[in-house]
This record gives sequence, C-alpha cells and structure tokens, in this order.
Amino acid sequence: MLVVQKYGGTSVGDIEKIKNVARRVAQTKDKGNDVVVVVSAMAGETDRLIGLAQQLAEIPDEREMDLLLSSGERVSAALLAIALKAMGYKARSFTGRQAGFITDEAHTKARIKRIEAKNILEALKRGEIAVVAGFQGVSELSHDVTTLGRGGSDTTAVALAAALNADVCEIYTDVTGVFTADPRIVPNARKIEKICFEEMLEMASAGAKVLQVRSVEIGMKYGIPIHVRSTFSEEEGTMVVPFSKEMEEVLVSAVTYDKNQARITFIDVPDRPGIAASIFRPIADANINVDMIVQNVSHEGLTDLSFTVARTDLPKAVQVVEEVVKEIGAKGYTTEDRIAKVSIIGVGMRSHPGVAAKMFETLAKEGINILMISTSEIKVSCVIDEKYTELAVRALHDAFNLGEG
Amino acid sequence: MLVVQKYGGTSVGDIEKIKNVARRVAQTKDKGNDVVVVVSAMAGETDRLIGLAQQLAEIPDEREMDLLLSSGERVSAALLAIALKAMGYKARSFTGRQAGFITDEAHTKARIKRIEAKNILEALKRGEIAVVAGFQGVSELSHDVTTLGRGGSDTTAVALAAALNADVCEIYTDVTGVFTADPRIVPNARKIEKICFEEMLEMASAGAKVLQVRSVEIGMKYGIPIHVRSTFSEEEGTMVVPFSKEMEEVLVSAVTYDKNQARITFIDVPDRPGIAASIFRPIADANINVDMIVQNVSHEGLTDLSFTVARTDLPKAVQVVEEVVKEIGAKGYTTEDRIAKVSIIGVGMRSHPGVAAKMFETLAKEGINILMISTSEIKVSCVIDEKYTELAVRALHDAFNLGEG
Repeated sequence: MLVVQKYGGTSVGDIEKIKNVARRVAQTKDKGNDVVVVVSAMAGETDRLIGLAQQLAEIPDEREMDLLLSSGERVSAALLAIALKAMGYKARSFTGRQAGFITDEAHTKARIKRIEAKNILEALKRGEIAVVAGFQGVSELSHDVTTLGRGGSDTTAVALAAALNADVCEIYTDVTGVFTADPRIVPNARKIEKICFEEMLEMASAGAKVLQVRSVEIGMKYGIPIHVRSTFSEEEGTMVVPFSKEMEEVLVSAVTYDKNQARITFIDVPDRPGIAASIFRPIADANINVDMIVQNVSHEGLTDLSFTVARTDLPKAVQVVEEVVKEIGAKGYTTEDRIAKVSIIGVGMRSHPGVAAKMFETLAKEGINILMISTSEIKVSCVIDEKYTELAVRALHDAFNLGEG
Repeated sequence: MLVVQKYGGTSVGDIEKIKNVARRVAQTKDKGNDVVVVVSAMAGETDRLIGLAQQLAEIPDEREMDLLLSSGERVSAALLAIALKAMGYKARSFTGRQAGFITDEAHTKARIKRIEAKNILEALKRGEIAVVAGFQGVSELSHDVTTLGRGGSDTTAVALAAALNADVCEIYTDVTGVFTADPRIVPNARKIEKICFEEMLEMASAGAKVLQVRSVEIGMKYGIPIHVRSTFSEEEGTMVVPFSKEMEEVLVSAVTYDKNQARITFIDVPDRPGIAASIFRPIADANINVDMIVQNVSHEGLTDLSFTVARTDLPKAVQVVEEVVKEIGAKGYTTEDRIAKVSIIGVGMRSHPGVAAKMFETLAKEGINILMISTSEIKVSCVIDEKYTELAVRALHDAFNLGEG
C-alpha cells in the first residue's frame, strides 16, 4: 500500500509529540507500506509568526507573508526527518518546491496547478520515507514561495495522495474523527463513522475545522478515501468516502458553526444594472472570498446590500469597500464582526423537505434572531449574533437527534 | 553608491529592533544609495532550533539541519521586507536560492561556488531594496538548501558585495567595532579604527566572533572594504581594509580567545610513514576542521599525537576517531574539552622578533601552563586550561599596552 499521512500542528506541537509521530510513521513503514508524511507547523507557530508580522504592518505584504509562514512547516519537516533517521529509518525532507507543488501566483491563497512528484517517487523507490512540508508551493511564473491558505497542509496531503495514486490519505489530528458537532460545545456529540465527500465539503465550508475545504474537493474529484483520525490513539476515525445511497437515510449528519464571520452592508446603493458587479469584482480581485449576499427590496431606486466575508479578511475588504462606496455613489457602509454562522448538513435533506423550517423554528424557540440565511441542496446556514452560537448549536443538535444514546 | 548592509541576530532580535533596522535601511536609501540588506535569524532562534534537533538525535542529519536552520533567516528577511513596505518603501525578500547563492554539497558548511545575482540586480534597477536571507544557499547538484556555517550571514553579505561590486559592505552588530580584546573581559579594551584584512582574518580564526572567517577572506580577495559598526549607535565603527605599510608600526593589534576548543590525543600510535594521512584524511572527509596538530618525539616506534577541533565538532570527531584507532593500531585515545586558545595578532610581528617569547613569559608569570603552541607570521596562539582564559587575555592585553589611555 502507498499511504499518505498528514500530521497537524498539535500532533507535532513539541519534541515528545514529534517522537510519537515518528513512531507512528515507522509502524506504518514496518508493515511494508510506502509512506509519505505531510506535516504542519508546530502548534502556535503560524499564529506567532502572524503576530510578529502584524506588529510591523496592519496588512502585511502577502508575498512576504508566504515566505514568513512557510518556514513553520519546513521546521517540522526537518525535525521529523531527523527523528526518523535517528531511529534508523531512511527518510528525506521535501520543501513545497522539492515536492513539486507548482501553484498560481495568488499569495496566501495559492491554488495548485500541478504536482511534479518525480522527486518523491524516486525517494519511495529508494525505500525512503518522504517527509513533506505542508501548506506551501512555488509559483509557476515568479518562482516565489506560495502558501495554500489556512489548513493548507490537508490540501498538500490529499493532492499528493491523488498525484501518487495513494491507497488512502490519513489525516491525523487531535480529535478522534469528525463529530456531529463540536464536542467542546455539545458534550454528547457523536463520532461519525462514515461520511460522504459532499457532506464533508459542506461541513468544512460551514466552519468545521477538521479538514480544509479544498482538500475535500480534491479527495472527491480523485476518489481518494480520507481517514480522519487521532494522533494520540489507535482508535479508528472517520472515513470520508464517495456518496452511497444508504447515506440518505440520515436527515441531518452534523451541526457546525463558524465565528470567523463579518458582515459588510452598503447603505443606499443606487439600484441599477451592473451594480453588483461593480461591488464584487474589486473584492474578488483582492482575493477575498464572499460567502452570503443579501440585497433588500429597493425603495425609491435605493437599496441596502449586505455580504459576509471571513472576519480575518475584514480589514482588507474594508480597504476595497472604501473605494467602491465612492465609485458607485452609495451613502456609506457599516461593518459588523460579532456575528457567527450556524449550519446543518446532511445528504438526507435532498429527499426530505421541511428541514430548513425545523431549523428556523428551533432557533426561534430559543429567541435567536436570524440575520441572514443561505441554503444549498444539503445544507442550511443561518447568520446569528455571535453570542448565541453555542446555544444555537446545542439546540439544533438536540432537535435533529444527533446525540449519543 | 551601492551599499550592502548586514544585520546580525541581536540587531533583528525583536519587533522594535526590526523597526529600527528598517529605519536605518530607509535612511541609507533616502541618501540616494542602492541598498541590499542581508539579515541573520532573530537572536536565539538558531540556538532554539539546534536545541530542538538535539532532543531528537545526538548527531542530527546535516541535510535536515540545513533545512531547519535556514528557516530563521527567511523569517527575518520576510519581516524586514514587511516593515519596509509598511513604511512606503519598495522592498523584496530573497531566499538564498532567489539571491542566486549556488553552493557545493557540504551541508552545514557549504562553500559558495558562484552567485547568480540577476534577480537582485533587476530588483535594484526597479528601485527596490533587496532584503536577503543570510547564511544559506542551494546546492549545485542536488538543489537542496545548504547553509554556510555559523556566522554565515557575514559571508553572504561580503560575497554579495563582491558579486555586485558594491562600494562598501557594512556589518551591523551589537558592538561598535572591532576591539583590542573582548570588552566584557578587558574593561579598557580599545576600539580599532582601521585594521587590515590579514589581521582581521587571524582574529576571526582565533575566536573573535565579530566576523566569520570566510567573509574576511572574500573581502580580502575582492578588495571590498568592510565597515563593522553598531546597529544601535551612529558612531563610526572599524574599517577592515587592505594592508598599508604604516600598519606595521603596531606590534600587536589585538588579543583574542576561543573557548570552542577540544583536544583529541591518540596514544601509542605506531610511528610509520603515512600515519598522519591515515588519521587526518577520514577527519577531513567528515568535514571537520582540524586546527593545531602536535606530534611527540617517538619512543620505541610509538608516539602520541594530539590535535584540536571545535568543541562543537567533538562528538562527530570522536565517531571518526573510534574507527581510526582500530585501523592504525593505536593503543587508544583521550579527549579534553575544557581547553581554550588565546592568541595575539599583529602585522607588526613580521618585522619585530621576540613577540612570541614575550607572550610565553607573560603567561608563565601568571602561572598558566601552555598545552599547545602554534604560530603564523602575524599570530601566536597558545592552548591553555579553559579556566585561565580571562586571566590570560587581561595579562596579554596589559603586557602589549593595548589598553585605552
């Protein structure tokens, strides 16, 4: 078997943990597998580096941020390779460049254009364990270091598993799998044994931090089974696999929340054709993802228009919005950053109407006001005041009977 | 003018200090100069990373150490570029690879084979400040990250100054220049205004930590004046320049010491031709620098042979020595690591005999036993018991009247 394993920041958080990872990797190798290991930065390191940069610039240059942040994964890769060699195993570290991750030029959110896996394949042929620095690549045109966005090491792992046609991609983390809700908020949350890519994708988009969205997309596209499991236990985790019919028997699979949300509202926007494009083109050009968009009914040719972005993107978004307000002749804009998004997800929704209504009733019963709504075939999301997040998640988890026992 | 500046670890030790460096760089740019800045890792970072690696392996793999340690300078370069851009300057970071530092394959002690400075020249042409991560390059054959050895950022700076044909290379550090002795040990040590490359070279080899040996060699070879000065003061520092006749008027320019010393002695070595080669070839192959070598007069075909290496190389050297002892049929070996080397340096020695004798007398008067001696045209070094280091340095500084006033 060819196994790609990815160990997150908490799994390599200190020297004892790195030794533990080395032992797990060695076990997998000892069973006769070819092993590729992708590592994240040691827990806290990425935040420490971001903190340093933010003391120097409100909005640090993105090319430089990529050079800065990529160092964390390089350190982890070197340390794990050192540990494996000290245990007598053949091992070799690979930077994003050496692993062949060629990306576009979108710094801090680069997309993989292709993976030139020659170096890694040769290492495997020599019987070496390949230790790959996650989260990073090199841009195709300018040959600069790029990073794949927060959680990008998941994407490194799954994309590499696809490129190498691996049998499985194991994502090692500090929880034992994917849960019906965040167990820190919902004590009786249940571990999900098997979940389909579509649901996992919606969960990741809706704030479940267990896997990066793009890693799930890639797994789905190439049919790479992803095994989400704990570094600190031998327990089987959650298998993320292609959809199968019997999965629709479950109405709602999970409740998620996302506090990394902010809302921007344009006030008194002239309601004429092309106005949305004038607003969202410059925001897209600034590489800011817009999530929900709501436009009010127009009065006297003027309307209000709200949209949400990641809270961490708010300063950058505001810079763009300042310009846009002038250009389109809006009266002004407001921002709110104390909001959160709660979502319910399940492929079963497709065949069972009334799920959204039940969600709204549940929130209403708790006295929680809904600020924005968005739906997909297998997901319903509501934006609410941040302070109600935990209450909302628990109420929904109960309402849809997701708990244990 | 084209100015290459290098800022050491203490100069970029925290965010406030990085801002200070950014201001100094900006001042130099504002004066109409083209500026290339080389930075070290933030103070303590390299030691922190070495400490992590040593918890994983007694002798960590050197290829992996290079990947590990090179991250420190990359972080500094990114942060300084962020700071400069936030101040409104055009700036761009360069990794060792991007700066064009092509080296041999000798990990942890790589030598620069050539510098392909195209990227930096283009940046300067665009009016950008080039911020270069010091200490690192990329190996010519295997395209791996390499490092230039402890203090390698000095070499990065001077070599780059040579490649760019810069007018001056300024080495910014936490002291105001090169002193007649370490001011922490000798309170009345004097700052040297002007010193020639040859003396600086001997000082660096003899333990003065202010400049890496190779950086001085390169400065000498290409005639690049090196200005050693403080990041934290506007005071003029020490100019390292080509030799001129009037420099010989000074008998001894400085006293230095080096505690990073260890001695290995082979006991009862069969005294036959080729024995020295059998001993020192494998040590050289392991990339360990041998400093002094002393062979005793042979008795009954057996002799003792001692040599010194950097204390930090001792574990690696012992590995080699274990093998060599068996091969050459020696009785055994001993190691001592509580020794130090004190040296006096001055181009004036060439024309004034008796300097060495005065050194030995001075040490004898203090009751300090000399374990090994080595001399060059402009240097005398003695290996002594480490505990006498400070006493010896002070006595020699006095004996040769190097003090202030």
